[in-house]
Amino acid sequence: MADEVVFEYLHMEMINYLYRTAEKIEHDHCISKLESLGFRVGQSLSERFTKDCSRFKDELDTMKFICKDFWNSVYKKQVDNLRTNHQGVYVLQDNKFRFLTQISSGKQYMDAAPKYLAFPCGMIRGALSNLGINCVVTAEVSAMPACKFQIQIQRI
Amino acid sequence: MADEVVFEYLHMEMINYLYRTAEKIEHDHCISKLESLGFRVGQSLSERFTKDCSRFKDELDTMKFICKDFWNSVYKKQVDNLRTNHQGVYVLQDNKFRFLTQISSGKQYMDAAPKYLAFPCGMIRGALSNLGINCVVTAEVSAMPACKFQIQIQRI
Repeated sequence: MADEVVFEYLHMEMINYLYRTAEKIEHDHCISKLESLGFRVGQSLSERFTKDCSRFKDELDTMKFICKDFWNSVYKKQVDNLRTNHQGVYVLQDNKFRFLTQISSGKQYMDAAPKYLAFPCGMIRGALSNLGINCVVTAEVSAMPACKFQIQIQRI
Repeated sequence: MADEVVFEYLHMEMINYLYRTAEKIEHDHCISKLESLGFRVGQSLSERFTKDCSRFKDELDTMKFICKDFWNSVYKKQVDNLRTNHQGVYVLQDNKFRFLTQISSGKQYMDAAPKYLAFPCGMIRGALSNLGINCVVTAEVSAMPACKFQIQIQRI
């Protein structure tokens, strides 16, 4: 039994649903709708996951929580690599990102990647927002199913 | 870590999203949209879950699969009671249905129940359809979070 596919299939059908019901001209909106859905799910999840945690000591500590516990709960694996320039930019690399593993690894489906990454980007942003960190999250795919998420902290 | 909430939160946000974007007059459509989303997810899941199963010997055997393995994978528990009139009607009772446990057990939120049950009904219908059984699935709540799903087989 592959229990973890339940979340994956629901995510896939949600994307299909949004794209199916949207007019051609609205396809850009789908990305932002998925991102905002992800934001709300990420917010709730980090609220729930940190219920019994002690306070994070700094920004890096919070990022480590995202890379380990949060990632593990959502994707059943950890982020493979975390890098930072110590100036508010963090790069999370997942060498086998779950939402991309179903897509062929060739160049052929590269165009489809953004719609599978909008929800995950939103989830990271939502999770961090709930932990007091405002940021912009973008994703980059160079070779499927590997994926890099870049988090740019917004200082006020 | 409460891993299983990931699916639950995504389901909740999908409902919120559909209701938020729909016009007041369209609220009935939301139910059928959720049902059809559930249908597609149920189809894919039963395809995946039965990949290595031997063939089911009859209708009842298929229902037992839904009550045990399918339910367990999706909701992390089994159906509590399965009854049939041996004439094509099956009633699955779940005494603590996962999508209703977050809602207060009073009568107050009874009106909200249908929108949390449309997707699960669709999932049962989709799963059975993929196993060669056409049916109509309805849900009934008398006391939250208990729920009865009635499956009416459609003979051609």
